[in-house]
Amino acid sequence: MTKPENAYAVIMAGGQGTRFWPLSRRTRPKQFLSLGPSRRSLLRATAERVWKILPPERTFVVTSEEHREQVEAELPELRPHQILAEPVGRNTAPCIGWAATHLRRIDESAIMAVLPADHYIGETDAYVETLRRGLEAATHGDYVTIGIRPTRAETGYGYIEVGSELDPGVYRARRFVEKPNRQRAEQFVASGSFLWNSGMFFFQASRILEAIDRHLPGLGEQLRRYDEAANRGAEDALVRETYADLPAVSIDHGIMEKVSSVSVVPGSFEWSDLGSWTSAWELANRDEHANVLPEGSIAVRSSGNYVRVPEGKLVALVGIEDLVIVDSGDALLVIPRDRAQHVREIVETLRERDDPRR
Amino acid sequence: MTKPENAYAVIMAGGQGTRFWPLSRRTRPKQFLSLGPSRRSLLRATAERVWKILPPERTFVVTSEEHREQVEAELPELRPHQILAEPVGRNTAPCIGWAATHLRRIDESAIMAVLPADHYIGETDAYVETLRRGLEAATHGDYVTIGIRPTRAETGYGYIEVGSELDPGVYRARRFVEKPNRQRAEQFVASGSFLWNSGMFFFQASRILEAIDRHLPGLGEQLRRYDEAANRGAEDALVRETYADLPAVSIDHGIMEKVSSVSVVPGSFEWSDLGSWTSAWELANRDEHANVLPEGSIAVRSSGNYVRVPEGKLVALVGIEDLVIVDSGDALLVIPRDRAQHVREIVETLRERDDPRR
Repeated sequence: MTKPENAYAVIMAGGQGTRFWPLSRRTRPKQFLSLGPSRRSLLRATAERVWKILPPERTFVVTSEEHREQVEAELPELRPHQILAEPVGRNTAPCIGWAATHLRRIDESAIMAVLPADHYIGETDAYVETLRRGLEAATHGDYVTIGIRPTRAETGYGYIEVGSELDPGVYRARRFVEKPNRQRAEQFVASGSFLWNSGMFFFQASRILEAIDRHLPGLGEQLRRYDEAANRGAEDALVRETYADLPAVSIDHGIMEKVSSVSVVPGSFEWSDLGSWTSAWELANRDEHANVLPEGSIAVRSSGNYVRVPEGKLVALVGIEDLVIVDSGDALLVIPRDRAQHVREIVETLRERDDPRR
Repeated sequence: MTKPENAYAVIMAGGQGTRFWPLSRRTRPKQFLSLGPSRRSLLRATAERVWKILPPERTFVVTSEEHREQVEAELPELRPHQILAEPVGRNTAPCIGWAATHLRRIDESAIMAVLPADHYIGETDAYVETLRRGLEAATHGDYVTIGIRPTRAETGYGYIEVGSELDPGVYRARRFVEKPNRQRAEQFVASGSFLWNSGMFFFQASRILEAIDRHLPGLGEQLRRYDEAANRGAEDALVRETYADLPAVSIDHGIMEKVSSVSVVPGSFEWSDLGSWTSAWELANRDEHANVLPEGSIAVRSSGNYVRVPEGKLVALVGIEDLVIVDSGDALLVIPRDRAQHVREIVETLRERDDPRR
């Protein structure tokens, strides 16, 4: 492993997503599910990829208090101080800033690789190489992000415009662009100078805290209080008391779009933010009729379906096309594959009913 | 109850149907399921209707050996000798003939109402009135059947052509017609002189045995041997040994189409032979979007669906139309409502695989 000895991974596992209902729940969000072809949870897969270049003892996970035990179960390699449990989710800027204070206390020169726990990544070798390049660029003091080479005019992702090359494989990030409409997305892809914003970042812990102080001074001040409290062993109580008051700002919006020197490392590996069951179908191993079915299923004149049921259950489809069918044991969802994002309407109804199965 | 004291019901509960898979199984055929709006099994519902005019002690059930215990559980009112268990199903002529020998031994003048256990009947009062009329006609020595007034040009049923009126509400049956094609079915319905063949019959036990002797002499001979063996308490072994050799002939084909004096009593109650999940949808209480859904289901922009799941399971549909979705716990079927009869392809595949879930 050729990697800087002061590099740390911060895996963001605080998602509360409802997009994979009924498999994902408040109590078991997406990062704890296996989606795509692997049987490992997304969180576990994220950690194992990181461990190709960083050791488990330099891996931190930020999650919510209610999911702390699930993180411990998925990643028994971690010691308790490596899991930071937020009392409540406040988007990525507080999460990353808080983690940065922890790393800086351990190592003044700490470099952080900030990685979402709930994304799909295809080619691990290409990914690891990109990680290595990102960490290297951050060593020089840059704010670094990974941009994914777009393979289609996706309107569900943010984009990064790429500028001049700074170092081999490292470019100036000219600007961040919010999710575009179809036409702009097509222009971006055609131009060849736009990448998908992957939500993966690299920077020195001290540098991101400086940037927070400058651009989100309220957050910076509170993080300083946490840091001081930690030094006298009183951080937990203060965090529990005040975390909900932190501004809910994304690191993209709050920091990366404002700092002057952002670099982007293009990544050419297969990547998805797994925004819905549709993407799970896209990434899974499909049979010759484009179905993703449990072993032993019987599908007659059926194509393009994504079906998940409890282990051992028999699935029988006749004349069914392009549906997502998910049986979680206590709930059954049936929805057209190209409208899978509407599952949120179900979760919303369950919330109104105060049904615990949401 | 105004009824002849020598009238008996013979409920035919030997069906092995696969059309309601995955709820129906070899081990739990249709007559043991609740289909249509009632929560009672079809068998139980059949018996309770009969008991409006005949007492339980004059009710007999013919079933298969493997389902004897399920019949006992559904109808605890019956004593053991009232359940006749066939070692193997041989269609309706042997079943009815065998039951006739039992009734004749009890009562030389016994009249039998032969009733399928797995049909749906809507208006009980009209049905009971028709039963009464059928029994009455059989008292005069007729072979009597119930014909249902058709409400559509159904191609899935046999028809009976009605002739002259013999007694009030009792007509000569001119001929039996096999399932017609669409055009003939439309002609039948338009003519006003055709009824659906309901598979319900009435006759004296001695008279049907005479007819069997004449038209199915091989069967008649064997039934006589059963009768003699019964008189010396040795019927069970003989039946077990020889029942499989009886000719598998329907009472319609083997007898009713051949005897000269068949009467038909028109019935005006709602009736279905429950040929597929489609008919279960037709008969169930549908909501304002023509859905039949378990209580508590969430259906968004969905219509015309029939959904069954285990008790308490949450169903969520978004943008789904005209599907049959049946979750039996160990299996999940999804099939378009208008193609529900193709479920037999699933059962056939399971048979080839020797999968016990058929």
